Amino acid sequence: METSTIVFSMSVLVVLLGLVGSDPDPLQDYCVADTKKGTRENFYNGVPCINPQNVDISHFATSTLSKAGKIGIVFGFNVTLTSIFNLPGMNTQGLTMARIDIGPNSLVSPHSHPRASEVAILLKGSLLVGFINTSNHLFTQKLRPGDSFVFPKGMIHFLYNTDSKVQALALSGLSSQNPGVQMASPAAFATGPTLPDEISKKLFQINDQDVTRIRTSLGG
Amino acid sequence: METSTIVFSMSVLVVLLGLVGSDPDPLQDYCVADTKKGTRENFYNGVPCINPQNVDISHFATSTLSKAGKIGIVFGFNVTLTSIFNLPGMNTQGLTMARIDIGPNSLVSPHSHPRASEVAILLKGSLLVGFINTSNHLFTQKLRPGDSFVFPKGMIHFLYNTDSKVQALALSGLSSQNPGVQMASPAAFATGPTLPDEISKKLFQINDQDVTRIRTSLGG
Amino acid sequence: METSTIVFSMSVLVVLLGLVGSDPDPLQDYCVADTKKGTRENFYNGVPCINPQNVDISHFATSTLSKAGKIGIVFGFNVTLTSIFNLPGMNTQGLTMARIDIGPNSLVSPHSHPRASEVAILLKGSLLVGFINTSNHLFTQKLRPGDSFVFPKGMIHFLYNTDSKVQALALSGLSSQNPGVQMASPAAFATGPTLPDEISKKLFQINDQDVTRIRTSLGG
Amino acid sequence: METSTIVFSMSVLVVLLGLVGSDPDPLQDYCVADTKKGTRENFYNGVPCINPQNVDISHFATSTLSKAGKIGIVFGFNVTLTSIFNLPGMNTQGLTMARIDIGPNSLVSPHSHPRASEVAILLKGSLLVGFINTSNHLFTQKLRPGDSFVFPKGMIHFLYNTDSKVQALALSGLSSQNPGVQMASPAAFATGPTLPDEISKKLFQINDQDVTRIRTSLGG
Amino acid sequence: METSTIVFSMSVLVVLLGLVGSDPDPLQDYCVADTKKGTRENFYNGVPCINPQNVDISHFATSTLSKAGKIGIVFGFNVTLTSIFNLPGMNTQGLTMARIDIGPNSLVSPHSHPRASEVAILLKGSLLVGFINTSNHLFTQKLRPGDSFVFPKGMIHFLYNTDSKVQALALSGLSSQNPGVQMASPAAFATGPTLPDEISKKLFQINDQDVTRIRTSLGG
Amino acid sequence: METSTIVFSMSVLVVLLGLVGSDPDPLQDYCVADTKKGTRENFYNGVPCINPQNVDISHFATSTLSKAGKIGIVFGFNVTLTSIFNLPGMNTQGLTMARIDIGPNSLVSPHSHPRASEVAILLKGSLLVGFINTSNHLFTQKLRPGDSFVFPKGMIHFLYNTDSKVQALALSGLSSQNPGVQMASPAAFATGPTLPDEISKKLFQINDQDVTRIRTSLGG
Repeated sequence: METSTIVFSMSVLVVLLGLVGSDPDPLQDYCVADTKKGTRENFYNGVPCINPQNVDISHFATSTLSKAGKIGIVFGFNVTLTSIFNLPGMNTQGLTMARIDIGPNSLVSPHSHPRASEVAILLKGSLLVGFINTSNHLFTQKLRPGDSFVFPKGMIHFLYNTDSKVQALALSGLSSQNPGVQMASPAAFATGPTLPDEISKKLFQINDQDVTRIRTSLGG
Repeated sequence: METSTIVFSMSVLVVLLGLVGSDPDPLQDYCVADTKKGTRENFYNGVPCINPQNVDISHFATSTLSKAGKIGIVFGFNVTLTSIFNLPGMNTQGLTMARIDIGPNSLVSPHSHPRASEVAILLKGSLLVGFINTSNHLFTQKLRPGDSFVFPKGMIHFLYNTDSKVQALALSGLSSQNPGVQMASPAAFATGPTLPDEISKKLFQINDQDVTRIRTSLGG
Repeated sequence: METSTIVFSMSVLVVLLGLVGSDPDPLQDYCVADTKKGTRENFYNGVPCINPQNVDISHFATSTLSKAGKIGIVFGFNVTLTSIFNLPGMNTQGLTMARIDIGPNSLVSPHSHPRASEVAILLKGSLLVGFINTSNHLFTQKLRPGDSFVFPKGMIHFLYNTDSKVQALALSGLSSQNPGVQMASPAAFATGPTLPDEISKKLFQINDQDVTRIRTSLGG
Repeated sequence: METSTIVFSMSVLVVLLGLVGSDPDPLQDYCVADTKKGTRENFYNGVPCINPQNVDISHFATSTLSKAGKIGIVFGFNVTLTSIFNLPGMNTQGLTMARIDIGPNSLVSPHSHPRASEVAILLKGSLLVGFINTSNHLFTQKLRPGDSFVFPKGMIHFLYNTDSKVQALALSGLSSQNPGVQMASPAAFATGPTLPDEISKKLFQINDQDVTRIRTSLGG
Repeated sequence: METSTIVFSMSVLVVLLGLVGSDPDPLQDYCVADTKKGTRENFYNGVPCINPQNVDISHFATSTLSKAGKIGIVFGFNVTLTSIFNLPGMNTQGLTMARIDIGPNSLVSPHSHPRASEVAILLKGSLLVGFINTSNHLFTQKLRPGDSFVFPKGMIHFLYNTDSKVQALALSGLSSQNPGVQMASPAAFATGPTLPDEISKKLFQINDQDVTRIRTSLGG
Repeated sequence: METSTIVFSMSVLVVLLGLVGSDPDPLQDYCVADTKKGTRENFYNGVPCINPQNVDISHFATSTLSKAGKIGIVFGFNVTLTSIFNLPGMNTQGLTMARIDIGPNSLVSPHSHPRASEVAILLKGSLLVGFINTSNHLFTQKLRPGDSFVFPKGMIHFLYNTDSKVQALALSGLSSQNPGVQMASPAAFATGPTLPDEISKKLFQINDQDVTRIRTSLGG
């Protein structure tokens, strides 16, 4: 099932990031991430630094965002992020950059970043973007190339490519080195283990068959 | 429709709180909220204080949590919070206390607090509580009176009264004077205006009829 | 001497907490405390996490607050706190919950929490509570069951059970995972080593005999 | 009664500071305090700035610390602080400087700063300084001119001039623009209104006559 | 003199930003900047919000970055930033996005951002970028389209278009809504009023004629 | 070359500090720096603590500032700082104290502290001090003994001894345990490796010979 594969690949990314993020003020010029120590041997609220004497230029540069990641068949999008793994000099700098490639008529599904606000700039194609505030008010906007849009911190938001032929490309800045992603649909129907049926049914006022059907289609 | 009424009453609360919250360190002994200035005339990232010469003991005490709020028929729960409106001395103190009354077999539906972690203590009845991390792993636990449970900051979580006869009562501490609430089901199906159909369908891989049916039952 | 025993038991608690507290924002979903590494082998401004792959539901739940601790004979109260030792999932979540049991006519003696504000809810009995601001103004209030009261961050405060027969029970939320406690009377008369006599005498404008007498009664 | 006069003069200072302090990061080059708006007309968790076009060099310089304040007869010390009133350019800069003049055999009585750590440098004379941690351990040290000493954030501390002839002079840096002062003896015996007798007696295990006598000598 | 014009236009931008920036955590869903109140009438360490009832979608979207600004003749670059003026929904979100257009063989002169780290992505052309740490170690890197580079918070850095024909285009994310810019050459030679000659001469160990010549060429 | 020696000695200090600084809130009473672990074996965004059971009074006191450091021949000044190496109890306390000795007609060259604001008090001699804001406005002031002056966070500033005979002495408080120093002249002309000539020339609109001459005189 393609959907779950995609969700899973996003989840893997998040798992890895989830273990290591850190957003204090930088407390020295830089603290280049020691990803081996901080994510495989010892674990902190953040990651330790390598010996400053071993810092070199390669820690501050990356080509990670130069190419689109593979776009999935079902959801049809890919998000590529800078992280302490591909750009270790970002550690303690409080920022992530992302490139978002979205296939025709495809959706970056509603999700929130518990630790970051986001500003997206559309470079190619056309997007319908939006977010939902805590009073359930929906704000939506059509973007053309060059347009920027703010997703306030923690708010559920989405990006939808309304064009049926052209793939869209956006770049985002996020205000944390580890924004985190909580996607609404897998959180409701594709957790491991699955939510108790009673809760899924009450959540959307649906019946057993609905729950089973949605879980299956979302790979849960 | 009872459901939407309940959701609405929760939303109203959130709207009001949403305008005024503030979680910096207290920068003087206290900054008793001037709710008139800070929520009706001028608006800040936080609320201003009343003249310190007018502060009196009433600003630091409240009976708000002494009684359960009215429990709705459909969702069957009520959350009562301290806030700068009923306890203005809380302004800048970085805390909210909540009492949660949950009817038999009723659910405090999956939601997240964008600005707070939460610890709940069950005082009466029995609850199944849980949260979902950003890797879609579900953690659940049965609570008995006296048990406490942590909902980490920003994570989607729920409380379900598994008893068919006894109403449950819990008290929570939250790490912000304005935690905010983003509930999964109204965010997906009961926003104003409604999400474009294409997005709702893709979100849960459902069809037009599903979308219409769920929206109706959720009062969207 | 009972007094010093009680003070000591409170001190022990504080010592242990004192070594490990940490109140940054959570920088990943959770950072379950590795209390062995962070409090016995290595020491940080905060505590490290266990390997996220070893996190399980037991780290987020506790029955610590379900029973009253033993109430001392002289001061006649007991404070039981959640901490990274009994609820390791609280690490980095910025909160502590406390249950406070106070015998008839007993006093939780004036003290301050250097790292937290506090909101107390009275569940049983009746209390006279109060705090003193930095201008030496005293705020006091009688609480009945269901009433809540704010102790602003860092201010000296107390809770006094005015009833001669009924034991009181309160629950508090505190805005730090390691609030810390500095109690006025042992800080003045029961330190180790003792304060120089000259300082104790000047502090309260008392004489040598007063100092000796108070020290003895406070177990100093 | 000289004592109360001195305590009062310190309190007045603290009251004024208490209304206006603010220690966020500076969010622009500077935010020169508008002390009229922020402390007499409107009140915030911090103080507003004057129009940046009206900023001039006088806002960044002061001669406040060039002279010792008047030393009281009973306690025999004087603390002079930079503040947003005499050095408005300090607003949002997170620092206070203090000069402390202490008469022969006089004591800067045990107190804590709820919002700041402090480092004192002795310029003239000789001092015995110390602080008490939250486990009631006392740390004391004799200082000679040129020596520096750390008072950790929020800890009760004191400075005692052990010389019977020479006045001492120290300079301190404090890590907040509004450190706040909570002095142990007036908080216990000279509040307004006074603490209930029962609480004062239980606090130090003393009797009614002791309470009356100490209150009188401390001007309570 | 073109140079000073360019420097001046950048300064104007910075002046305006300098008055209003604010980087606390967002304390409610959003705090859309009230730029009239916060930058013309009243002044704060940050800017106030408009009435939340008047918030609409236009506050979260902008086309500001869709076109290059005018490139100056002497320095030959232009930086266009999102700000609370063109994208008021960014207020309190802790981010700025910038587009940087650099003419052939032109230099974005060494400068630092006192309140932000930066990650730049090269979209077109080729750049030599670098930063200098507080030990005066220089890190430089050639970037090709798609490459990203980190400028750690507060460090002096530059971007140089090494191509003699192709204009370069980069996009940056910065970790503050008001990063601030302090450029090395005007700070040394084009301040108003000018630095005393003695200081300029000692700063670079140069003579009176050097000082005069450099000041003239930099428009000081 | 004396100049470079002096710059170097300052740089060495900064390098060491640069590896270990940390300015979070203190999260326990104190976290006495374990400088061996935190700066030679493992590296963090901050430094770890020693076992609290090994803390003693020596960690909180130092005579570091009691004597002037050696004043260099060319620049003619010396800055002596408290740090986690000479005063390990300062770790996590957010403060540095500095003594600044400046020879006749000598200059503490323009520099900025990326992580601290500073307040200087002149104890002896006479100084011309100043800072430059991000709009290139210069603020300067003559100080007499007892005068204090604010250097806002991150702004380029200098101290110049205008007296041709008397050595000046100032004490400063800085709002970080690791302020960091970025000095304008070595950053421009004495980096290792050197800045590309093209950039140095464009930076100050000077020619190849100027660049060579300044580099030589600054020891670059």
